[in-house]
This record gives sequence, C-alpha cells and structure tokens, in this order.
Amino acid sequence: MNKEIITKVRNKCPLIHHVTNQVVMNFTANGLLAFGGSPIMAKAEEEVEEMVSISDGLLLNIGTLLTRDLEAMLLAGKVANKLNVPIVFDPVGIAATSFRAEAAKRILENIQVTVIKGNAGEMAHLIDIPWKTKGVASTGDGNTKELALKVAEKYGTTAIVTGGVDIVSMQNEIYMNDTGHPFLTKITGAGCLLGSIITACLTTDDSLNDQVSTALSFFGLASEHAAKQPHVFSTGTFLPSFIDALSLNFEALERDSL
Amino acid sequence: MNKEIITKVRNKCPLIHHVTNQVVMNFTANGLLAFGGSPIMAKAEEEVEEMVSISDGLLLNIGTLLTRDLEAMLLAGKVANKLNVPIVFDPVGIAATSFRAEAAKRILENIQVTVIKGNAGEMAHLIDIPWKTKGVASTGDGNTKELALKVAEKYGTTAIVTGGVDIVSMQNEIYMNDTGHPFLTKITGAGCLLGSIITACLTTDDSLNDQVSTALSFFGLASEHAAKQPHVFSTGTFLPSFIDALSLNFEALERDSL
Amino acid sequence: MNKEIITKVRNKCPLIHHVTNQVVMNFTANGLLAFGGSPIMAKAEEEVEEMVSISDGLLLNIGTLLTRDLEAMLLAGKVANKLNVPIVFDPVGIAATSFRAEAAKRILENIQVTVIKGNAGEMAHLIDIPWKTKGVASTGDGNTKELALKVAEKYGTTAIVTGGVDIVSMQNEIYMNDTGHPFLTKITGAGCLLGSIITACLTTDDSLNDQVSTALSFFGLASEHAAKQPHVFSTGTFLPSFIDALSLNFEALERDSL
Repeated sequence: MNKEIITKVRNKCPLIHHVTNQVVMNFTANGLLAFGGSPIMAKAEEEVEEMVSISDGLLLNIGTLLTRDLEAMLLAGKVANKLNVPIVFDPVGIAATSFRAEAAKRILENIQVTVIKGNAGEMAHLIDIPWKTKGVASTGDGNTKELALKVAEKYGTTAIVTGGVDIVSMQNEIYMNDTGHPFLTKITGAGCLLGSIITACLTTDDSLNDQVSTALSFFGLASEHAAKQPHVFSTGTFLPSFIDALSLNFEALERDSL
Repeated sequence: MNKEIITKVRNKCPLIHHVTNQVVMNFTANGLLAFGGSPIMAKAEEEVEEMVSISDGLLLNIGTLLTRDLEAMLLAGKVANKLNVPIVFDPVGIAATSFRAEAAKRILENIQVTVIKGNAGEMAHLIDIPWKTKGVASTGDGNTKELALKVAEKYGTTAIVTGGVDIVSMQNEIYMNDTGHPFLTKITGAGCLLGSIITACLTTDDSLNDQVSTALSFFGLASEHAAKQPHVFSTGTFLPSFIDALSLNFEALERDSL
Repeated sequence: MNKEIITKVRNKCPLIHHVTNQVVMNFTANGLLAFGGSPIMAKAEEEVEEMVSISDGLLLNIGTLLTRDLEAMLLAGKVANKLNVPIVFDPVGIAATSFRAEAAKRILENIQVTVIKGNAGEMAHLIDIPWKTKGVASTGDGNTKELALKVAEKYGTTAIVTGGVDIVSMQNEIYMNDTGHPFLTKITGAGCLLGSIITACLTTDDSLNDQVSTALSFFGLASEHAAKQPHVFSTGTFLPSFIDALSLNFEALERDSL
C-alpha cells in the first residue's frame, strides 16, 4: 500500500473511460469525480476506440449488457491493449445467464485485462467452480483465497474477490482488505464504483500491488467514515455522504477509523 | 392489510427483475434494496428469460421504451406467466404517444399481469375513457373508482389508480389509500419505485388484497416520515431521506404519523 | 434579466422533452422538477415527434450518443422547428471524437436551434478554433467572448460559453454571468441540467436575452446557496441541497448571496 497514490491520482486527474451498466452510471461518475478522476462514459461502437485512445484507464462492466455494448467493449479493450491502457473488468451477474457468461468469455479471450474484480460467485464462475449465487449477489461460503489465486492464474491478471474481507491475488501474493462498511452491500453500484476507483489508481507509476491495495483500503475507509457521520441514518443518507468521503485524504479517513 | 408482509419480504429478500425506464433505474434499485428486496435490471432479449426464471417477481415499466425493450418485456412476461411469477405493469406515459399505447396493448394482449398501476390519465387510456393529461402526468378530475373497477374488469387484474388518494380495485372490492407526501409528485420515479415495492410484496404467501394494500400504505407512510425529518428541506434532501425511511419498520412509520 | 421569468415558468410548468445522455437523466429530471418544469425523456424514433408536439421546449444533448439517438434528435428537432418549439443544443464532448463532431454537424445543418451552450472547448470546436480539451472537459485558456460571438454568428443562435464566468452572445450583445459555485465542476451533469433549466425559461413570453440571463443567474445563485448550507460538506451532500435550492425564489437566493 502507498497512500501517495491517492495524491498522485488527484494531481493527474486521469480520464477513465467506462463501458458500464445503466443503473450505476450517475453514481459512478459522481464518485470518481469526488475521488479525483475524470469519467467518460460512451458506448457507441463508432467512438469507443477514439475515447480509449485519449483515456488513461478503461473500465468494462457487464451489468445491463446488450449485444451492442459487448461489441463496444471488445473494440475498446483491443485499443486499450494496443496502447497499454490498464483495464479493469467487472463480470457483474456472470453466473445469472449464459448470455453474460458468453460475453465474459469473449472479452477475456480477446482482451488482456489488468484486474478482474467480482464477488465470490462471479469469480467462481470464471473458473468453473460451483458457487451459490442469488441473482447478481453471491451467497456461497467457501475458499475465496483459492478463487482469487485460480482466477489470477487462469487469466494472467490480478484478481480481486470482493466481500466482507476482500481477497486479492497479485503476482502470487495474497493481500487481504478488511475495510468497508456493510452499507456497501445495501446500495446499488458500490462494487461498480470500486472498479472505477481501482482503474483510476492503476494510472499512476506505482506497482500494481500498491495500486490495488491502496484503492481497496481507501474505498473501504471512506465508506466507514461516511457511515459514521451524524447526518447518516441509513443507506439513503449514506449515499451522498460516501461521495463526500471519497474526496478526503487517506490520513483523515485513517484517523477517523481509530 | 397485513403488516407482517413487510417482515416477510425482508426475510425472503425476493429477486425482482425489472425491465424499466432509464431515468429511474438507480433510484428504484436503491429504494428496493432499502425496502428489503433484491433488484435485477436487464433488458437484453438474450437473457431476460433466464433472469425471470430465477426471479420472484417481474416489473414492466414502459417509460423510455424502445422497440427492443418491448420485445424483452414480452419474452420476460411470457416466462413469468409460465412460472407463475407475479407481474406488475406500469404503463408510464401511455396517453402521450401511439407508440406507447400500441406497446401497452401488445403487452396486455400477450401477458396476464397481476397488477396494473398508473395515474388516472394512464388508467383511463387503458379503457378508452377521455382524460386530461399533460405529458406523462395526469391532470384530469373524474371518477377514479370507476377507472379502477373498469381496468380491473377489462384486464382481469388488480388495478391501482395512483393519486392524492390511491384507488385500488381488487376482486370487486375497492380499497383506498390516503398515505403519501406531496413531495412524491415532485420527484422523478416515485410511481416507478412504488411498482417495484408492490412487486416485492406480491412474492409473499398472503392474499393479493393484503399485499397491495400493505405496499401502498407502507410506501406512503415512509414518504411522510421522510418529509418530516429535520434534515429535509425540499425534494432534493427528501430523496435520500425517503430511501432511509423505506428500511424502517411499519410500526415506526405509523407511530410517527400520529 | 427578469426575475419574473422564474415565477412564470412555475405557473406554466412547461413540458420539456429531452433527448439527453444516460448519465444525467435522473439528476436532470429531479432538478427540472424542483425548478418548476415537467421533464419528458424518450428516445424512441417511433415517438419523439409526438412527444415534441405536446412539449413546450426541446433539449438535445449528445453525451452517450448512439446512432439511434441521433436519428431521434433529428426527428425531434424538425418537428420542434415546424411548431416553433425552442431548442437548446448541448454538444457534450464534441471535441473528443469524430462521431460526436459529425453528429453535431448533422444536427446543426438540419435544425435551427435557439441556444447552443457548451464549455469553451466544445464551442471552439464548432467554429474550428483550436482549443485544449481533456475528454469532455475544457482546459484551454483563450478569448471566450470571441468564441461566443462566432458561434452565435455562424449558427444564427444565442451562444453560451459556460465556465467560471459564463459568456453569452445574444443578438450581438455580450452578457456575462459570474454566479455559480465551483462544486458545479466536480459533479456530473451540472451543465446538462443547466441546459434543461434554460429550455424551461425559453418557454415564457419574454425576450431571449432576459430568458437566458435569468436562467444562468438563477442557476448559479442556487448552486452558491446550496453549497453554503450547514448540511453540505462536499459534492455528495451538495447534490440534494442543489436540487432543494432550485425550488427557491430568486429573491431568497439573492438575499443569501449578499
């Protein structure tokens, strides 16, 4: 972990191109802006390549996917690979339908992604391990370290299994993150926004391990800080407070968590 | 009415599949999550049938409809009918364009919906009664009980005419709900979220009458509770407070309304 | 400027049809509702003409544009021109890709818009003046008055170059607006919502100069008022507070800014 990464992101204000789901676009954009990045969101096949060519990072998220979006993701990903733009892939709901499973397969066969993040059910599906899921949520209980290691190995990426404790497999090391407030599981798009924040951190000149661990730790601490505010009563008032917290310094969040 | 239904929904955490409009997706998802349900939102024809087959309820809402969405709704609805998954249909803006009118007609000719909910102008349009509307809002003044009864009869459903007082026709009985704060008419998507909350309540083992009346009463009380909070000044601050209130117990809301 | 315009809008509650981007739909709808207008948002080619024919104003915004949306915009704009419905055009991100540049060209060749609003980079692109941009944000520094005058002249419209100080060229006069809080640049969709508020003001019987200057001044003052509230800490809590402020009276906002 390297807290300087947060400052570096804010100095750079990286452009992050998103091909993401319709439910979370506004929340993701405001969250990334608060954090210090600059979101672009476009899905037209006619322009995604140009958008990626001016971007510092690319986020692909298959929630609410349409066939047309998949084609845009493939175009965007290929350009990103050619230009060494880091890619975060979020296989939302992959276990729910064969359409999403096929889409994820095509993406991972054609694009080298830098990071794959998903809940245990989603990650298990990527390596054909049976897992209990409900819709787009993971409810199973099992060896999440194994999931992280195997996804990382199979796809040659960093793999993040999100959950109460996030498990990361990075270059054969396991990193665990236990920051994060339970409200994150009761709002829509927390994981999607995390993907965006991670992508922004991937644009600095630090090691991948530091970038990912810093992003996870910061994101979780911000949620804990937000939930603790006297003007937060439940998930509704948590949402604006969380966006507020994403603009704070790492040190302010840490102090608060003591 | 049966207040236990709220608890039952929370214990079950039903998966509700939505084919709904782009404007309200985020708000609906966060509102349903706060209430205790689990939202899925997907519009790809390739996957809606699978999504419905794992869902406990289905919401169809024709705001921002595209032809492609209509095909997805028809596929989703047919599977729901086959699997006895309850369906709530919200004919948003049906009186505004012939495209929406035709779409609603195709849906209602091909799918047996459990509940139709809409404002007076929308419900009047479904039974060819002239009504004053403005865009997607109803401004006419007339016999809303008649509207509810006739829609229920014509389509063999429960019919809810939403308004200052909601009128429900259920199995030849009329139920009236007078809970609800005027802020609901000054935010976007209140009616859409209500549809989602009703769908969640339809997934318990209670009578349809109890499910619908409980959902309406709870939703209105939650809005009144939210509007009353000292940190709510107008519709903007009402929005997060309303999501907060949807996670409360029925008893807390009732006490508050005395 | 004519403060009565705000009251007139609220008495009229004009229907504003939007063909706008997916990121900002919910925020725009809630903001316009708070201000006193009535939003419609529909993109189906099958219905946009009918929607415009019942509308008082039309907003076209090319963020997240798809080819299908462009066709809908052209249909909508032609009907609006035929019926003398005022049109505001927001060329979001036009400098980022040739797809958006071509789309804007087709719109401006086929439709007479009433107002074009954009940041300096977007406006510069419309008149082929080089400008520094980053993604959809403008970062260049130059003669923005010249930009406003030239866009207004070339397209026969009122032109608004938004920024720290907004520059408006209206019938050969230059109007400058310096209201507005910096938070507006750190949330998504502020400019998009401004477009919607301007469109609403264009529906009164006042002069175009008064309508545009009043909208700009009010919008900026509302953001300053919102940012000043004790319950606002950063951009997250600013968002609901800003929607609150849009429902206030001009006088209340002015008093507050002294």
